[in-house]
Amino acid sequence: MTFSIEKPKTNLLAAVKAKIDGKTKPIGALGTLEAIAQQICLIQQTLEPTIQNPSVLVFAGDHGIAKKGIVNPYPQAVTQQMVLNFLTGGAAINAFCTEFDIDLKVINAGVDAELPSHPNLIDLAIARGTNDYSERPAMTSIQCQQALQSGAQVVADLNAQKGNCIGLGEMGIGNTSAASLLMHWATQIPLEKCVGSGTGLDVEGINKKLEALEKAYAKHPIADNARVVLQTFGGFEIVMLVGAILKAAELKMTILIDGFIVSAAALMAIKMYPTVKSYCIFAHNSSEKGHQLMLDYLQVKPLLQLGLRLGEGTGTALAFPIVRAALAFMNRMASFESAGVAKKTTSKN
Amino acid sequence: MTFSIEKPKTNLLAAVKAKIDGKTKPIGALGTLEAIAQQICLIQQTLEPTIQNPSVLVFAGDHGIAKKGIVNPYPQAVTQQMVLNFLTGGAAINAFCTEFDIDLKVINAGVDAELPSHPNLIDLAIARGTNDYSERPAMTSIQCQQALQSGAQVVADLNAQKGNCIGLGEMGIGNTSAASLLMHWATQIPLEKCVGSGTGLDVEGINKKLEALEKAYAKHPIADNARVVLQTFGGFEIVMLVGAILKAAELKMTILIDGFIVSAAALMAIKMYPTVKSYCIFAHNSSEKGHQLMLDYLQVKPLLQLGLRLGEGTGTALAFPIVRAALAFMNRMASFESAGVAKKTTSKN
Repeated sequence: MTFSIEKPKTNLLAAVKAKIDGKTKPIGALGTLEAIAQQICLIQQTLEPTIQNPSVLVFAGDHGIAKKGIVNPYPQAVTQQMVLNFLTGGAAINAFCTEFDIDLKVINAGVDAELPSHPNLIDLAIARGTNDYSERPAMTSIQCQQALQSGAQVVADLNAQKGNCIGLGEMGIGNTSAASLLMHWATQIPLEKCVGSGTGLDVEGINKKLEALEKAYAKHPIADNARVVLQTFGGFEIVMLVGAILKAAELKMTILIDGFIVSAAALMAIKMYPTVKSYCIFAHNSSEKGHQLMLDYLQVKPLLQLGLRLGEGTGTALAFPIVRAALAFMNRMASFESAGVAKKTTSKN
Repeated sequence: MTFSIEKPKTNLLAAVKAKIDGKTKPIGALGTLEAIAQQICLIQQTLEPTIQNPSVLVFAGDHGIAKKGIVNPYPQAVTQQMVLNFLTGGAAINAFCTEFDIDLKVINAGVDAELPSHPNLIDLAIARGTNDYSERPAMTSIQCQQALQSGAQVVADLNAQKGNCIGLGEMGIGNTSAASLLMHWATQIPLEKCVGSGTGLDVEGINKKLEALEKAYAKHPIADNARVVLQTFGGFEIVMLVGAILKAAELKMTILIDGFIVSAAALMAIKMYPTVKSYCIFAHNSSEKGHQLMLDYLQVKPLLQLGLRLGEGTGTALAFPIVRAALAFMNRMASFESAGVAKKTTSKN
């Protein structure tokens, strides 16, 4: 499966900058909001950017390694329990999506449970959890391919319904471990700097997690190909996220990236297609240990620093209002000319 | 004029923490949002906090010193032009308040112009601009008292209409200078660290501004009383902000503090009544030079870091969704018990 991802054309850049600088405010005074407005103008190739039918997509999957209980302080069953919680509306992501009027869809990428059918659940399960990568590859290459395609299809369907902006989230007990291994492979940053407390391991727990992951990483030949690495460590939800990101970029959608795990998926997508980065807005800086290093590696600055470490796409839901504000200033503010406001007199800035 | 400002009672603290920790998320995983939820629960003395009839109040005033054009890159007339822009809906704060469904009121605290009557303009002008404090005190002690009372009255009126949360903003060409002088007095931090580029001075401009402000500061006896200092340096909009903050704290309202200038007003209010701080949420970290130092002095961490330096209350408008999200999780999320989600198994955290 290949993707055709163009870098946004920059023909409009001068006009976008002129429109931003003509607004009734000092040059640059809206900081990051100006950067966001510019980015979305270029993605959408317009001076009047909009967000249409925004959604948060939460991909859920289980990880074979989590059965051992070494890398995860919560039992594996919490993945399915939280999916049910998403469907009955009791999770943080529900509260935020309701508050901000964002559509929420949950995708069963491979939870180790029978899940009920529900209008907000898209069942694309590849299997009931991945294999334990401390023993063998997390999935087959066919499963990996299927996961990429499924993630892409979810986004293509949303886009067909005029959605042009998505927030991406995940749920999967044990998935900070897979994300750490992907990060280590992609960035060559030592694994110990990529491994953190996840949902709440203490120091001893982190050390055991690191030891287990070092062994698991050493067990497999070092691949020079992102797909093989995805296949090796998984999980299904992460691979679907990669497919979703690649398709969204191909379709010129704006992509809000959540915390450590979704950022790891974005990192892999960018390794495969560097132009993807132009379509991504990194929503927040998770307090999971490796996230800041990963963001530094990607040379991106996230919108929010709120000490979140929950996943579920919660950071993206909180970033939506900021993105909306960026478009609101772009579309609704008066210009110096139209408002009859004097420009600066003394400084050269 | 005196205020009676109680520190929020902490009887409910254990119950608040238990409710937060019982939500279906790892302990502490919502970071700053948990702190905000806790703060507002204690302010409102409830486990089910709400925001009712939120408003942004923008206090506008002119500064005598701005006529000289040394401390300000924009001409003084921009204050009135921007007030008109607020009234016709063309400013950034309009775009944000519309986007987030927040009521916006502009208060003429002392703009040097005749302003039209308008349903969103509250005219409480003390005079047409302050005196130039490089020559004499910005206002009389009676004017200062009147400004404190007017600010308090605006908030009391809102509270009578069931408003329980306000964002505070300002407009006043030259008012970073007054804010720097107030900060220098209150914190004893050297003036050169309190003086920045305002709406866009270059290095040479900042040096001239600093020189002018050093002279102005030295011209007046060093007061040991916050009211005398407010009277000396002004401006009317800043003193009204102090009155608004004190009254809002007295009425147990939640107060969102904007950037450098409103933070300087909060700093003065806290100097007068230290318990005020418990009612304040610092909305964002302005890129105006002295702001970080001021926040450090107050030992507060602002919600947003978006490189804003616009004023108008724009930072508070952008913080409202985050505050709403904090209350949404508190009021709408399921508990582990109600959702049937397993708790952590291995870690002691």
